[in-house]
Amino acid sequence: MNTPSLLERRYRVMGRHSPLFYDRPLHLVRGEGVWVFDADGRRYLDAYNNVPHVGHCHPYVVAALSRQAAILNTHTRYLDEGIVAYAERLLGTFDASLSNIVFVCTGSEANELALRIARETTGHQGIISTAFAYHGNTVAVSQISSLFTPPEQRGPYVRTIPVIDPYRERRGRSDAELVHAYAADVQQAIEDFHAKGVKLAGILLCTALSSEGLPNVPPGYLQRVADLVHAAGGLVIADEVQGGFGRFGTHMWGHAALGAVPDIVTMGKPMGNGHPLAGVVTRPDLIEAFESRNMYFNTFGGNPVSAATGMAVLEVLEREQLLANARTTGAYVIERLNRLRDKHQLIGDVRGKGMFFAVELVTDRKAQTPAPAQTKRLINAMRDRGVLISRIGVHDNILKIRPPMPFKPEHADLLVDTLDDVLKGL
Amino acid sequence: MNTPSLLERRYRVMGRHSPLFYDRPLHLVRGEGVWVFDADGRRYLDAYNNVPHVGHCHPYVVAALSRQAAILNTHTRYLDEGIVAYAERLLGTFDASLSNIVFVCTGSEANELALRIARETTGHQGIISTAFAYHGNTVAVSQISSLFTPPEQRGPYVRTIPVIDPYRERRGRSDAELVHAYAADVQQAIEDFHAKGVKLAGILLCTALSSEGLPNVPPGYLQRVADLVHAAGGLVIADEVQGGFGRFGTHMWGHAALGAVPDIVTMGKPMGNGHPLAGVVTRPDLIEAFESRNMYFNTFGGNPVSAATGMAVLEVLEREQLLANARTTGAYVIERLNRLRDKHQLIGDVRGKGMFFAVELVTDRKAQTPAPAQTKRLINAMRDRGVLISRIGVHDNILKIRPPMPFKPEHADLLVDTLDDVLKGL
Repeated sequence: MNTPSLLERRYRVMGRHSPLFYDRPLHLVRGEGVWVFDADGRRYLDAYNNVPHVGHCHPYVVAALSRQAAILNTHTRYLDEGIVAYAERLLGTFDASLSNIVFVCTGSEANELALRIARETTGHQGIISTAFAYHGNTVAVSQISSLFTPPEQRGPYVRTIPVIDPYRERRGRSDAELVHAYAADVQQAIEDFHAKGVKLAGILLCTALSSEGLPNVPPGYLQRVADLVHAAGGLVIADEVQGGFGRFGTHMWGHAALGAVPDIVTMGKPMGNGHPLAGVVTRPDLIEAFESRNMYFNTFGGNPVSAATGMAVLEVLEREQLLANARTTGAYVIERLNRLRDKHQLIGDVRGKGMFFAVELVTDRKAQTPAPAQTKRLINAMRDRGVLISRIGVHDNILKIRPPMPFKPEHADLLVDTLDDVLKGL
Repeated sequence: MNTPSLLERRYRVMGRHSPLFYDRPLHLVRGEGVWVFDADGRRYLDAYNNVPHVGHCHPYVVAALSRQAAILNTHTRYLDEGIVAYAERLLGTFDASLSNIVFVCTGSEANELALRIARETTGHQGIISTAFAYHGNTVAVSQISSLFTPPEQRGPYVRTIPVIDPYRERRGRSDAELVHAYAADVQQAIEDFHAKGVKLAGILLCTALSSEGLPNVPPGYLQRVADLVHAAGGLVIADEVQGGFGRFGTHMWGHAALGAVPDIVTMGKPMGNGHPLAGVVTRPDLIEAFESRNMYFNTFGGNPVSAATGMAVLEVLEREQLLANARTTGAYVIERLNRLRDKHQLIGDVRGKGMFFAVELVTDRKAQTPAPAQTKRLINAMRDRGVLISRIGVHDNILKIRPPMPFKPEHADLLVDTLDDVLKGL
């Protein structure tokens, strides 16, 4: 009798559709910094995972988590110095208007709460999101997560705007002209709501437009969108699950890099370096209006262990100067990727923001024809060669390269050299 | 200039409505077993918190958490032995039909997913819950959480059944007669849906009916409800956030203690002893039907650290025989509370299931008149005397006593002796 494989055992208890990466799933047993190791002892360069934001199993973060777990782990219904101190430090990284926080456990919970706050404080129902967004897995958040939810399941209170794609759509236009064109999509959605008698509660946008393919957002876009949304009585919700915690290098928050102050900010994945911690940051008037009418409590959200872990992440970001590293290593990665573009016709476009990179593969540079089949083969070949990346975008033809923040030039060399080799053989 | 107090600092960053226990909030700094300690070094007996299920900061659980956090913390998109082994062990405690699990982070997420599975696999929308339920804080789950959501906010797809209250409603009737009467409420809700053209997706019930006041559910009730719900094409969802993980002593799961097998089971709070871990257990056919049509992924849900922590909780439950302790210590608590009832007219009823107790306070035993003001004073006085409990029920007149599972007879003595003293002075 054969012993069932780990994959077979997993199918039995978790079903066959629980998602796994790669054609040949990876069985990982250890992580350290930007490296993960499989059951055969093989090392992989992690150029994909943003949850281990300051590096896999960062000793300072693990120590903070372990220390607090041995002392006290309750919830926010008791007073706790660590929770308040963490809230103060985190809020210190925001515009002064964004001075209140509600701790939750996941990005889905953060976006759920943001939708509740927007809808209940405006008294409106309509939410705008992009046509290829992912914001989470709950019912209300699924409705605005167009990536996996077909239009007929989105209900009457959701409108989507087309994905912006300056790589294909610039056609010689200036930034101001692009902003004008893209803003018209938002205005169109607002008018479409109004024609159906639905008032605007707000817009929810990922500040990296990550699922959408990390497009180069033209300067002034977010502020122009905010002006339109505010004029229609809605609120701007910035989803910082992908773009937050210094990912872009220049700023702690994606919305700051885009040059606008939202009304509500949601954050998740990198916040606890893997520990389930997320949050909603907003204005005190919105918190007061919402919480005076709604009892909101999140059992695990912002417990003392989560707070200690989140605080350690902020401390490591600062003491290891990881935003500066995202700028310098990020620039180096872009420079090397651009040189690769000169060499390989398949690379149509190279884009990046700090430590987040997108490489768009096309079969024809002039026609900009997406190359999804080659993209899929490439990420699997990269995995077989020991480098972990993934893919994004409407056409599934964009390499998603988003390593932990301590990624260094020598890691960039391994990434780009391997990419070069794989592209040669593709 | 005065240094702002911790409470004032908390108000500034978390708002004034983020819930706190007691008239004078507790500032806790340490926890150990059934004890917590405040900033002045004062010790409190924790007879309330079920999140630290096997005891505050249990060293075995903390060690498992800390060990795994230092080795690897990723997600379920990679293969992981620990995740699969934990799923296998946990599922081994269920009826054989309930052989699949989806890991999530919170009870709210578990109930969200359960609602999605029920609605999408039946193709129906209607959900029945009780008229005083709390199942979580997301939009869809709030709609069925009647405790905090007024009827006009519940939407067209929610019907509530009255809270069952055998203490007041038995009036000499047999268990079978009570079941017959209570089942009629469920049938009424189904017919009310049908009259509006809404088909039944399912019923969602807390197996402890905790917010409802821990009533003595008559034997056969849950099976009769299940029969009615199944006949109407719906599914039975058992919320085990309160009643699960051996809380009742006799069985690992509340639904087993109530004598029925649900279609979907949700679990949360005690699962990771404070670590944010929750899950949905269901039949493989429902998982297959749901996940083959919906991409469901939960970033933090069931990560290697969560799995190691959850496994440690199961191991401690077994090695310390905490279900047996819930039976024996639980019986002792009930015996002592019943003696207290003989002494204090204010105690109208004493109820318990394993390590979960309800003491109903009434100003008139014959008229069974609820005593909410006295109940509030009593729990605050108990806090001042160093014993932590809370209150539940439609009339807010029921002491909620639900200590960590390693609660022993000597702790029970302190609890009941203090209660005796406080009642004397009330």
